[in-house]
Amino acid sequence: MSKEIPYKIYLEESEMPDSWYNVRADMKNKPAPLLNPGTGQPMTAEELGGVFCDELVKQELDNDTAYIPIPEEIRNFYKMYRPSPLVRAYCLEEKLQTPAKIYYKFEGNNTSGSHKLNSAIAQAYYAKKQGLKGVTTETGAGQWGTALSMACSYLGLDCKVYMVKVSYEQKPFRREVMRTYGASVTPSPSMDTEVGRKILEEFPGTNGSLGCAISEAVEVAVKSEGYRYVLGSVLNQVLLHQSVIGLETMAALKKYDIKPDMIIGCAGGGSNLGGLISPFMGEKLRGEADYRIIAVEPASCPSFTRGKYAYDFCDTGKVCPLAKMYTLGSGFIPAPNHAGGLRYHGMSSILSQLYDDGLMEARSVKQTDVFEAAEMFARVEGILPAPESSHAIRAAIDEALKCKETGEEKTIVFGLTGTGYFDMYAYEAFHDGKMTNYIPTDEEIAASLAKLPQV
Amino acid sequence: MSKEIPYKIYLEESEMPDSWYNVRADMKNKPAPLLNPGTGQPMTAEELGGVFCDELVKQELDNDTAYIPIPEEIRNFYKMYRPSPLVRAYCLEEKLQTPAKIYYKFEGNNTSGSHKLNSAIAQAYYAKKQGLKGVTTETGAGQWGTALSMACSYLGLDCKVYMVKVSYEQKPFRREVMRTYGASVTPSPSMDTEVGRKILEEFPGTNGSLGCAISEAVEVAVKSEGYRYVLGSVLNQVLLHQSVIGLETMAALKKYDIKPDMIIGCAGGGSNLGGLISPFMGEKLRGEADYRIIAVEPASCPSFTRGKYAYDFCDTGKVCPLAKMYTLGSGFIPAPNHAGGLRYHGMSSILSQLYDDGLMEARSVKQTDVFEAAEMFARVEGILPAPESSHAIRAAIDEALKCKETGEEKTIVFGLTGTGYFDMYAYEAFHDGKMTNYIPTDEEIAASLAKLPQV
Repeated sequence: MSKEIPYKIYLEESEMPDSWYNVRADMKNKPAPLLNPGTGQPMTAEELGGVFCDELVKQELDNDTAYIPIPEEIRNFYKMYRPSPLVRAYCLEEKLQTPAKIYYKFEGNNTSGSHKLNSAIAQAYYAKKQGLKGVTTETGAGQWGTALSMACSYLGLDCKVYMVKVSYEQKPFRREVMRTYGASVTPSPSMDTEVGRKILEEFPGTNGSLGCAISEAVEVAVKSEGYRYVLGSVLNQVLLHQSVIGLETMAALKKYDIKPDMIIGCAGGGSNLGGLISPFMGEKLRGEADYRIIAVEPASCPSFTRGKYAYDFCDTGKVCPLAKMYTLGSGFIPAPNHAGGLRYHGMSSILSQLYDDGLMEARSVKQTDVFEAAEMFARVEGILPAPESSHAIRAAIDEALKCKETGEEKTIVFGLTGTGYFDMYAYEAFHDGKMTNYIPTDEEIAASLAKLPQV
Repeated sequence: MSKEIPYKIYLEESEMPDSWYNVRADMKNKPAPLLNPGTGQPMTAEELGGVFCDELVKQELDNDTAYIPIPEEIRNFYKMYRPSPLVRAYCLEEKLQTPAKIYYKFEGNNTSGSHKLNSAIAQAYYAKKQGLKGVTTETGAGQWGTALSMACSYLGLDCKVYMVKVSYEQKPFRREVMRTYGASVTPSPSMDTEVGRKILEEFPGTNGSLGCAISEAVEVAVKSEGYRYVLGSVLNQVLLHQSVIGLETMAALKKYDIKPDMIIGCAGGGSNLGGLISPFMGEKLRGEADYRIIAVEPASCPSFTRGKYAYDFCDTGKVCPLAKMYTLGSGFIPAPNHAGGLRYHGMSSILSQLYDDGLMEARSVKQTDVFEAAEMFARVEGILPAPESSHAIRAAIDEALKCKETGEEKTIVFGLTGTGYFDMYAYEAFHDGKMTNYIPTDEEIAASLAKLPQV
């Protein structure tokens, strides 16, 4: 008989992982390398070093080392908010009357409100160690920018955030949190950069996009002495840092002899999903265990389920290297009524390769269904989820309801990446019945994909 | 040698208290009873039963039972977010370069964002058990209303919240969180009630006040079949429920053989402070230990430090019983530039009696000093504190800096009651240098106190 399972499984600080796990080491088909858009050749460490910190370049390119030690300073920062709880969703199970057992790994119990802090502190730490003055980045809804501001403030690094203009205006509170942490926040596109000026000239009055903000942040980093660019998702290094989520989840499950049947995560650029599934995927790749692994994306930005696996630009301004990924095309921007986050046009190269190899599933969900799940979850589990995270909640509920039909007692684990305190406009639209769904047509996606670069 | 102390001390669920502690049982001088404003006589259980649930009336009047069992259903709800962590503020100590050891009990890790949930679930539970349809209440900044909405949604009770008009307009997100939990939220004063209509007639265009919202909520409860009124602070029953904070804090400290020298809490109506200090005050009253206990209040609403210990109305409309408390007069409203919460004109009768008996200290702090402390704390400890909680942070920092001067290694424990995600307007004013201080003049306070009822 197994031990009684508490509502929240907390690991001891001493049980926190001391290394990140690099799933690439166990992949037979390695993720495709970043390419230099000029030459079409794989980016070298030297080329990448102009944009990223040296240590992060090493991590980006390392396809072989399975475990990379977490420096003590980062571990100490993690202790501010980690280990994060693995929660048994007893109340949700009761509400659904399902025989399924549902667990979620909750990453929202820190001021940045999401899992993004796990990589922000790592990237800021290596920048500091390299003697840099500061870092630049972009942010959409603001979770990444907030996380990076916190990390930089802790280490005394300057932090310049380019925030997608529409979010800058609609989410003044997010901006204010970043300012509390001493970051400078600029609405993008701005007149600060060449690429910003060019975009503003071409599209005056534009609301901005993530791809455009990336271009600006990269330009500023490359042109400023003592600065590098950092990114909160998509990259291999980010998935590496986020593996702390999966490692803790696995440790908590093993502590209570729980064997999950499926692992579910929301997917935008892949940072949370990649981190959560890494060690489970590792077991799967090594043939030690099998799990269903499910990526959940918005129907309005369906890169896995309707995109193409191809080399594409990471940003609108085309200043970044090319990445091979499931993509909707770098010009793709979800409809303005989309409020659920996860709006990046592409997907992590690691996850794209795993998906292409049939090692994981993907599905897309409509945003009104997502908010319905979010509200139900909030009411019974007491946590107000971020719209992003609620994509995973939706899929977990759907799977639990299937178990109710079949009577199967499956064990479902999902990632609850963050809280929705700064997304109340979207909740308001949902309450007022004003939230709509938009699903891009095949023609729209085809038109966007037609502009993929020729490699 | 004592054990190494982790960043966060988490109790096991099995270590959660199974009873609340009623500090009144150990008080020699009991708190003064509530009086019927008509007769001037102590309110009977029967009279109170028209406003409050029966079980809560019992708790309100019980000055003798030291331990009151926490019903299992409430304990199960507590497990959603409790035990809450006792955090060793290593990073703040480092930043201040103080020999003091600083701990804070963090109550903000739940969606309501504050400690208010501890009493909300208890009050909702007893209402449900009595077979009521719903409850009414008031809310200012919205912490209490949010907490009550969560509790009612969990139990399937209707929840009517009267929200101070200025907050309703300035904090639409708080309102939206309450709606997510299915509560109806009405700006106060409203045309729904006699007292609301009367106040609107007398002061058209008023921004509302807590005292006025209380009057409306009480009127609706008394006039609606199957409804009772609930209150988030001031009352004896609330301090009883909040004792879970202090009991957990004491258990966590004892686990590591830590003996605090002082316990610091912010004080508005007294719910957090009363809960945090209860078991420590119990030891002090029984002569088992001694602690400095410090209440911190805003300089703009200084009931302890500049009010009078007297019977006063609890609300503007004078529909509630009279309470003996440190008060600034029921007509006192802090200046509009006050953004720090804790704006109730009076103070818990229990705390008032303890203060009058010289068993605790009080001090007031200016709001710009409070936000300075809040920002410093956010940057090093990674939690964005509520303005209310930041009053306690300010005092803790001041005490730690005194230790730096004297070289004393004192142990400071303070209550971090909640998070500031919905207070970013105030942070913005602070960042922009637009935040000002207002300290009421002696004449203003005297004028307000001149209107105290004659008892």
